[in-house]
Amino acid sequence: MKQALEFYLEHRKKIVAQNYVNFVISWDMQTDAAENSVVADSEQMGVLSQYDYELATNPQFEQAVATLYQHRDELDDVLAHEIEVMYKNISDTKKIPMEEYAAFSELTSKAYPIYVRAKRENNFELFRPYLEKIVEFCKKQTVWLATDTVKGYDVLLDMYEPRYTQAKYDKFFNTLKERLVPFVAQVTANVEPVPAWATAKYDVNKQKEFCEYLRDVMCFDKSRGIMKESEHPFTSGFGTDDVRITNHYHEDNFISSIFSAIHECGHATYEQNCDKSLNGTLSGGGASLGLHESQSRFYENVIGRSEAFWAVHYPVLQQYFPEQLGQVSLSEFMAYVNRAERSFVRTEADELTYALHVMLRYEIEQKLMDGSLAVADLPTYWKEKFTEYFGITPPDDTLGVLQDVHWAYGNFGYFPTYALGSAIASQLYHHMSKDFDVEQSLASGTTKQVNVWLTEKIHKYGSSKYPDEILRLATGEDFDANYYVDYLIAKYSK
Amino acid sequence: MKQALEFYLEHRKKIVAQNYVNFVISWDMQTDAAENSVVADSEQMGVLSQYDYELATNPQFEQAVATLYQHRDELDDVLAHEIEVMYKNISDTKKIPMEEYAAFSELTSKAYPIYVRAKRENNFELFRPYLEKIVEFCKKQTVWLATDTVKGYDVLLDMYEPRYTQAKYDKFFNTLKERLVPFVAQVTANVEPVPAWATAKYDVNKQKEFCEYLRDVMCFDKSRGIMKESEHPFTSGFGTDDVRITNHYHEDNFISSIFSAIHECGHATYEQNCDKSLNGTLSGGGASLGLHESQSRFYENVIGRSEAFWAVHYPVLQQYFPEQLGQVSLSEFMAYVNRAERSFVRTEADELTYALHVMLRYEIEQKLMDGSLAVADLPTYWKEKFTEYFGITPPDDTLGVLQDVHWAYGNFGYFPTYALGSAIASQLYHHMSKDFDVEQSLASGTTKQVNVWLTEKIHKYGSSKYPDEILRLATGEDFDANYYVDYLIAKYSK
Repeated sequence: MKQALEFYLEHRKKIVAQNYVNFVISWDMQTDAAENSVVADSEQMGVLSQYDYELATNPQFEQAVATLYQHRDELDDVLAHEIEVMYKNISDTKKIPMEEYAAFSELTSKAYPIYVRAKRENNFELFRPYLEKIVEFCKKQTVWLATDTVKGYDVLLDMYEPRYTQAKYDKFFNTLKERLVPFVAQVTANVEPVPAWATAKYDVNKQKEFCEYLRDVMCFDKSRGIMKESEHPFTSGFGTDDVRITNHYHEDNFISSIFSAIHECGHATYEQNCDKSLNGTLSGGGASLGLHESQSRFYENVIGRSEAFWAVHYPVLQQYFPEQLGQVSLSEFMAYVNRAERSFVRTEADELTYALHVMLRYEIEQKLMDGSLAVADLPTYWKEKFTEYFGITPPDDTLGVLQDVHWAYGNFGYFPTYALGSAIASQLYHHMSKDFDVEQSLASGTTKQVNVWLTEKIHKYGSSKYPDEILRLATGEDFDANYYVDYLIAKYSK
Repeated sequence: MKQALEFYLEHRKKIVAQNYVNFVISWDMQTDAAENSVVADSEQMGVLSQYDYELATNPQFEQAVATLYQHRDELDDVLAHEIEVMYKNISDTKKIPMEEYAAFSELTSKAYPIYVRAKRENNFELFRPYLEKIVEFCKKQTVWLATDTVKGYDVLLDMYEPRYTQAKYDKFFNTLKERLVPFVAQVTANVEPVPAWATAKYDVNKQKEFCEYLRDVMCFDKSRGIMKESEHPFTSGFGTDDVRITNHYHEDNFISSIFSAIHECGHATYEQNCDKSLNGTLSGGGASLGLHESQSRFYENVIGRSEAFWAVHYPVLQQYFPEQLGQVSLSEFMAYVNRAERSFVRTEADELTYALHVMLRYEIEQKLMDGSLAVADLPTYWKEKFTEYFGITPPDDTLGVLQDVHWAYGNFGYFPTYALGSAIASQLYHHMSKDFDVEQSLASGTTKQVNVWLTEKIHKYGSSKYPDEILRLATGEDFDANYYVDYLIAKYSK
């Protein structure tokens, strides 16, 4: 076992270094690299992913992980968890027949451009045969990777949010269906028109300056990270000391850059505040997609759309844009950033209606996996169900089932984590509020006290525990969707 | 041999991919990465360089190279040259005792911060013991790597500019000493004061826009490269399709960003115009430091400081800066950008005096290597010789022997390539002018015709031939320093 541990720690250094390589290259491709250089450099990516594969499937490494897994009771908690996860990954990889995996990789690389075209041309039939094969593979995956306790769609859900099963998600989405759907219908029955100042022109450089200001408000440590531009905002990190976020700036949509900055700073705060002892291990970074999203949504929605936050920062924003906002009151601004309306596209949905978009995806994925819905029937089914939940009918498939790319990549089981993140944010807010007055803490001008609480309760663990364990340690209870619905109803009843 | 070739080509892919990794990471560290992330990520660099080393010293690879070297007559010219260079690199590496190499690496990493402090504090004695050991190692290198034909200081010179020996450089620098030193004394006897407009404030964003304009003038292909900012401008490239340059912008020194842009675009033009068939091999990129510098200096000095160039572009520059330059005539502008004066620091020297700074370094390196000068005597010797060549005496060592970092890295033999580049540029200009009217071609508004000539004569070969071979193919003759002196005397006699 001592030898196995030594080999594991030594080999892990190579894996970590390769993770760093992939982190920098992916950052480079998404930010700096010129169009044609990406094409040129993709050849190198093939060689590098071959090396990644060799590192991951090194027989001595697999043997070391197996040995350590047998002796995991003798390891410290962090390493024991890491070995458990690694052991599962290796076992799962071996359960998928090589030729099937290769065929699936080829299928999804071909499916992506077809999907893009199908969406652009509003032509579901073009994408249908690819999606049928993707669904077929995912169904097979649920068989190959099934265990005594995890079966069917649960297999896929577990890939994106470990230990969150259909039983849990059903409870979550049923709560939304029962309590949120009727409430949304009520709130969105009459919507105020968009005020003219919201779509006025806002100088892009001034937007950038204000987002820099927000970075300080959120205590983003600039000596350990940077902010740049990219088409779609994202966060990526390597350990606690190299955390990078991007943003986008549109002259006629200043709200977008502000809330993207807050959202991405939320992700970044998580990454920067993991325990430093996790650097150099495979237990750093966020514990899961859902838990990561709970942090970004916490800052974006709970904090970033609160009056307590803007009471301090709206006067600053007005100073940046005196012409556009000088005559707009704080309450007008708050009404706009919390505006809710029925709309077709998930990524553009507001805080209130967002989760219902996800709910629909979840239900459809369930049905595709248990065979009760055929891919060919998707467009019709989408329109029917969408109308039922939102009271409006998408005019075409581009604004319907084709709007999101995830399925073209074969990512079934991913969507629910988006809604889960928002819901967990509310649960955390409930418990945070018992420890201190969150709104009052924001009067200090920074989110420092919030950061400290979340660091202690969530961030410090990195991915050294399962997300449900971390939530239980943080709140003393399991996930409960009622906090989310309570929060939304209270907020939007005002 | 067939097996050796197959193995070589397969293994080369890994080396090329690793070169790409190093290219992106180094770019990232010099541009994006936050201060503390560089420290954090340097751990990963250790693991990666270990992998580089494993790839380079793979026994099967060494065997394949040895086999192909035996059969190099049967290979095509490009591969035969690549194998010859690779074979020499591998043999050289093996000639240096491992423990000596490790000790030297450690020595130079320790020497660097000491050098920085010594320069800052004008304290040569602090750096002296380190430099003594570095010189000692370099002397030993000249013994270990000596061949029947390459001995002594030539061993070091050959590392930076293959096949350029002391015999060649002596001839070069003797020509400078005889013809240029007296001419410089004459020209710089009376120097006009710096005009007020040259140090006025120039908006940094406008400077950037003008440099973007210059990129188009020089036909830099933006779909295959980018321009960013860094403290010191540099160019780095991976193949022909991913070529990156940086620039710096100072509000009170607009001339700096303009000529840095032209200089780096010169390097970039070389990289972008190598033959595309060299991508994915180890024969792409520039053939040597000197030849690379000949391209950047050609554009910066021969083209970029010519009246024919500015006759077209100065009116554009005036439009960018009407307040500062509206009343400054083209001839006043030309006089300023071709201003020559005696100064202490190589990197800030003008076109006329630049090579004399390098000449001094060369003479000193020769003496350190043949033992006729001791490290302890450097400060005094520097001042004496500097006064002899320039007619002015450096007030301290910071502005004297400590001004450049190269020796702290152990880079003996590097300096002469700087002067060689400038001199080759003049030789190329002479031959280019026989083929077409260079000045007249610039009236078109771009450097297109110049690029095409240099691509055909220099760029297309990449590093698939030795630099002296390429020069001979381009000009029909060997390197001749008289073109350079003729050019400078003609230009500065006006």
